[in-house]
Amino acid sequence: MDLEKSPLALPFPDMPAIDGVTLRVARAGYKNWDRADLTYAELAEGTALAGVFTRNVCCSSEVEIGREQVKAGRARALVVNAGNSNAFTGYRGREAVEQIMAQVADSLGCDTSEVLVSSTGVIGVPLPKDKARDGIAKVLSESPASWEDAANTIGTTDTFAKGATTAAMLGDTRVVLNGIIKGSGMIAPDMATMLGYIFTDAAVEPAFLQQCLSAANAGTFNCITVDSDTSTSDTVLAFATGKAGNQPLASFDDPGADAFMAAMEDMCRQLAHLVVRDGEGAQKFIGVSVTGAASDDSARRVGLAIANSPLVKTAIAGGDANWGRVVMAVGKAGEPADRDKLGIAFGGIWAARDGLPLPDYDEEPVARHLEGREIDITVDLGLGDGKATVWTCDLTHGYISINADYRS
Amino acid sequence: MDLEKSPLALPFPDMPAIDGVTLRVARAGYKNWDRADLTYAELAEGTALAGVFTRNVCCSSEVEIGREQVKAGRARALVVNAGNSNAFTGYRGREAVEQIMAQVADSLGCDTSEVLVSSTGVIGVPLPKDKARDGIAKVLSESPASWEDAANTIGTTDTFAKGATTAAMLGDTRVVLNGIIKGSGMIAPDMATMLGYIFTDAAVEPAFLQQCLSAANAGTFNCITVDSDTSTSDTVLAFATGKAGNQPLASFDDPGADAFMAAMEDMCRQLAHLVVRDGEGAQKFIGVSVTGAASDDSARRVGLAIANSPLVKTAIAGGDANWGRVVMAVGKAGEPADRDKLGIAFGGIWAARDGLPLPDYDEEPVARHLEGREIDITVDLGLGDGKATVWTCDLTHGYISINADYRS
Repeated sequence: MDLEKSPLALPFPDMPAIDGVTLRVARAGYKNWDRADLTYAELAEGTALAGVFTRNVCCSSEVEIGREQVKAGRARALVVNAGNSNAFTGYRGREAVEQIMAQVADSLGCDTSEVLVSSTGVIGVPLPKDKARDGIAKVLSESPASWEDAANTIGTTDTFAKGATTAAMLGDTRVVLNGIIKGSGMIAPDMATMLGYIFTDAAVEPAFLQQCLSAANAGTFNCITVDSDTSTSDTVLAFATGKAGNQPLASFDDPGADAFMAAMEDMCRQLAHLVVRDGEGAQKFIGVSVTGAASDDSARRVGLAIANSPLVKTAIAGGDANWGRVVMAVGKAGEPADRDKLGIAFGGIWAARDGLPLPDYDEEPVARHLEGREIDITVDLGLGDGKATVWTCDLTHGYISINADYRS
Repeated sequence: MDLEKSPLALPFPDMPAIDGVTLRVARAGYKNWDRADLTYAELAEGTALAGVFTRNVCCSSEVEIGREQVKAGRARALVVNAGNSNAFTGYRGREAVEQIMAQVADSLGCDTSEVLVSSTGVIGVPLPKDKARDGIAKVLSESPASWEDAANTIGTTDTFAKGATTAAMLGDTRVVLNGIIKGSGMIAPDMATMLGYIFTDAAVEPAFLQQCLSAANAGTFNCITVDSDTSTSDTVLAFATGKAGNQPLASFDDPGADAFMAAMEDMCRQLAHLVVRDGEGAQKFIGVSVTGAASDDSARRVGLAIANSPLVKTAIAGGDANWGRVVMAVGKAGEPADRDKLGIAFGGIWAARDGLPLPDYDEEPVARHLEGREIDITVDLGLGDGKATVWTCDLTHGYISINADYRS
């Protein structure tokens, strides 16, 4: 299946090298693709590790093992297999992961707990051990690859390579954060998974790196949805090599910690938005801002009820300022809401306030806003101070074509 | 927008008269439709009333008032407006409902609390009072209409008239239940709402009628989903005229109560299935049975996670036995599940057992099953005795066409 590049794609940014990170790619041949499908990142000794994972209880062995590795907090290498998610494969799948960990640990002279593995692709087929073994042997002898190579290699049916870069001043030390990511919910038949990797040369203690990643995750990756379907393998990992030479960050009391946290949040938001921009069949990028909720959590749940509503998403696809469907989605969220206090705006123009359509509401500028690629929906619940923004894409014929017309 | 008749449509059944129920239809002109849009049912004095309503907190005045009327438990008339849901219309919407109640109560010499009103159609436009007044005056003088007329008149963009009939022996007395229903989630742009009406000549005390309806509702209307979007106006009402002359039923200890409950459940299941058969763009009717869950409630939630998954629904649309997507949906449901105990079958043929794909799994008969109109998915969680069945339809280009291509 040849997918057209998303109309919401962004160009791949110029990403600087990160001291302590070496990337390599190779072709293991998990699928009959004519391109690299195995990504390897070698990390300097002492690199700190943090991670957040899917909450899907049918998760892969990679995710189960990764959760334990993150507790230890140190990484020397990352391996990403594309074309086979190795999920729902039981002990055979687990053996394949353990073999990769042992092979890489052996070559680096490190502990297997420091070798992270992710896999993405078909569910239910154990990762072939022979292909993995030969692929790892090959990738270890490859010359270094670029960030764009790596971003392309971790992809499955992604329509563009996704990367982001940002920086922060920690006192006098400038640190860089680079990230690559793949996926868009479950972008294509049998191809599950969002996988994201963030690399920085900053010196950060593992526990604090985890704290920053978890905090940034809440308002970014946990606030995007393409189709409400949670993959069995979603993973975001952060690696801090410490090569920038700053005083290691261990808590928010340390100088520069706030700047680092802000950079981490910026990085996660950029990567999360890139996933939505490659959503299945996406033609429009939609931001849903909810204010006046009982709490921030409540605002987020109302936002997700709107962003997951097939009727809201098809209305936006059709350029239809159908605020009745937004009312419906607010009402079904199961969160505190009062019909008679509700306000709804598209592109900053209020269509309804205090539970009533505005008499002088002019649909003309709203219709123009909905013709664009970037759509803003604002809902004010008029109850409290809770607020949140979530992001999604529209629901189009492209989604059906990708997921129904193609047979696995 | 002209919609083709659903390929899953059933012919309208032969429905007997029900003593104590007289139907009439007329054209109020809420929309520029060239057909009747106002349905009126006159009910014998002493008719018992029960009802279940949407849990959407942005519900219509009709629903708010209906909830109160059901507590009183008596009805003399039902009015259904089609083409305007009167939802999110504030005090002006409420005034229109109260005017209709007063006008009908005046003509029948009954209390306004005994006049039930439902409306379905566009959200956010107050029901025009003048059209309602003239429409009610007209309908009161019409000659009686058939069940099929009434089923057609309560519809909005439904593609076929939906009715069901069943009977029960209460000791020596045969009682009849007739039902009509409209909707399929939110079947078309701005056209919300499932509305269902059940009429019986049985003598049933209101509290017990409510008990039967609520119990039947749990395993029928609450177990169907088309697109996970809960309407602001969903309503199912039951009316018992008592004209069959049986000893009035007041509890499950009364002779015939079990037979009546079974008939009520049969009726609700028939009507619920008819709604799914008219789901937006539906090409296939899908039953999802979950067994081995921690509880019946847990089984239902797992079933709904599968039935609401866009990726499962598009896989079925494409005739793809993609059990990896079923695994994913089980895992995201947030219910107790153990990946290594999971079994999945299509059309009774197991594809996976105990968390592993079956080595001798033959996709051939499964592929044939998926080519049909009626699809069965069975998931065994292997944990406990909880079980449930939910029903949905596939997700096709037709859904997108109905909801995105058409502009309101």
